[in-house]
Amino acid sequence: MTRQQLVEQIFKKRSYLCVGLDTDITKIPKHLLSEPDPVFAFNKAMIDATKDLCVAYKINTAFYEALGVKGWEAMEKTVRYIDDGHFKIADAKRGDIGNTSDQYAKAFFEALPFDAITVAPYMGEDSVKPFLQHKGKWAIVLGLTSNKGAADFEMQKMGDEFLYEKVVRTVFAWGSVENLMFVVGATKADEFINIRKLTPDHFYLVPGVGAQGGSLKEISEKAMTTDCGILVNASRAIIYAGEKEDFAEKAKAIAIQYQEEMSRYLR
Amino acid sequence: MTRQQLVEQIFKKRSYLCVGLDTDITKIPKHLLSEPDPVFAFNKAMIDATKDLCVAYKINTAFYEALGVKGWEAMEKTVRYIDDGHFKIADAKRGDIGNTSDQYAKAFFEALPFDAITVAPYMGEDSVKPFLQHKGKWAIVLGLTSNKGAADFEMQKMGDEFLYEKVVRTVFAWGSVENLMFVVGATKADEFINIRKLTPDHFYLVPGVGAQGGSLKEISEKAMTTDCGILVNASRAIIYAGEKEDFAEKAKAIAIQYQEEMSRYLR
Repeated sequence: MTRQQLVEQIFKKRSYLCVGLDTDITKIPKHLLSEPDPVFAFNKAMIDATKDLCVAYKINTAFYEALGVKGWEAMEKTVRYIDDGHFKIADAKRGDIGNTSDQYAKAFFEALPFDAITVAPYMGEDSVKPFLQHKGKWAIVLGLTSNKGAADFEMQKMGDEFLYEKVVRTVFAWGSVENLMFVVGATKADEFINIRKLTPDHFYLVPGVGAQGGSLKEISEKAMTTDCGILVNASRAIIYAGEKEDFAEKAKAIAIQYQEEMSRYLR
Repeated sequence: MTRQQLVEQIFKKRSYLCVGLDTDITKIPKHLLSEPDPVFAFNKAMIDATKDLCVAYKINTAFYEALGVKGWEAMEKTVRYIDDGHFKIADAKRGDIGNTSDQYAKAFFEALPFDAITVAPYMGEDSVKPFLQHKGKWAIVLGLTSNKGAADFEMQKMGDEFLYEKVVRTVFAWGSVENLMFVVGATKADEFINIRKLTPDHFYLVPGVGAQGGSLKEISEKAMTTDCGILVNASRAIIYAGEKEDFAEKAKAIAIQYQEEMSRYLR
């Protein structure tokens, strides 16, 4: 999906919501466990319930890998079930030496039809570049993450800047606004103004709203650009909104709340 | 596998060789492509040929994920084929917020019988800790990697030390010599003396010998401890030593060279 197509979807739906499919088989409604593929059954219901309210889905690969081969099958079925009007993100935090990152890019962009993958920057340029060489595909590189551990290295000073600033400034040069985004956590709202100075036009994938406590209003005020420029992810707050037969309706109700709030902030 | 068991294997076999199963389906001998699972057939032959010469196998998950569900199946079959006398490493470079790293730990330590997983440290303590909480299992955290991109962040100064030193020093406190190792690339031999000062007793997983150009002699001199303390990985140099019917014998011949050289360096 191109940037233009993504922006069109955002303004058409008045939403920049990304629904995070962090589907944990121990947390889905019990009645689904008798399905042949409970995780896919749950995801299908989630996608059907939220597809008009969000522009992106983010599949957290860890939850699928934890189920082994069956989990990888459920992930494949899920990403193929999402229509091409949605931006499909593999939240996989991959990154390795060049020949290996190249294989990860094949895994998510060729073997599977994802539009984007999240990438860990520690190993530098040759670990990131292979994800930027697939037409119409995106690398979403970790900038400043939403977790407590961000303080350990990302928020440590490297010269006169934080490591995450060094990362964002450096990675900026490796891609363009058409194939590179950054992960910036919603729990670090004060940093958004600063990060926008470094990357005025890049899209950000923003996790940390909902269960992790970030404010949608605050990050929208601080990070939005004229063509939106942010995808805000909610996972647990939406997908585990209900635990009974009406779980999909409960999820939809929360997604509607997000979409309506986003509609007010969109210019 | 415990540290004591690993050290026993090393001194029994007079080898600290780790064979890297970075199995690329486009590079394996053509006659294997008619097998029902060519990647597993290749790995099985590699394991049979090298098991007496090495103490560890490192499965590079990227090469399996690039084949989708079939690849994940080949990975599972491979790790289950390796006997418990070998240290089984998932070279997966995972790391995410706590609840997600927890799922990755389940994926590799419970759904699959790996002993260890490589972990990217960028996101800090809560992204690493879940890998340290499984009895007899190991996190192998990226310290200084063997690739060119190591210069971009790892070798940048953070205060009066390099980022990789800060990482090694900080992560040191999160685990012990019984559940934590570091990745230190063989191409950075001069740094080993320095890293040994920071972590005198930890095991290192050392990639970069062979195709990437690192010297086995040099790193053995600089990084070895009284109980060895290093696992040196070779992937392409061994597994692609031959490309015809005798590929396994060719691989074995190279593995023998490594083992014999290692035997001389072991105290």
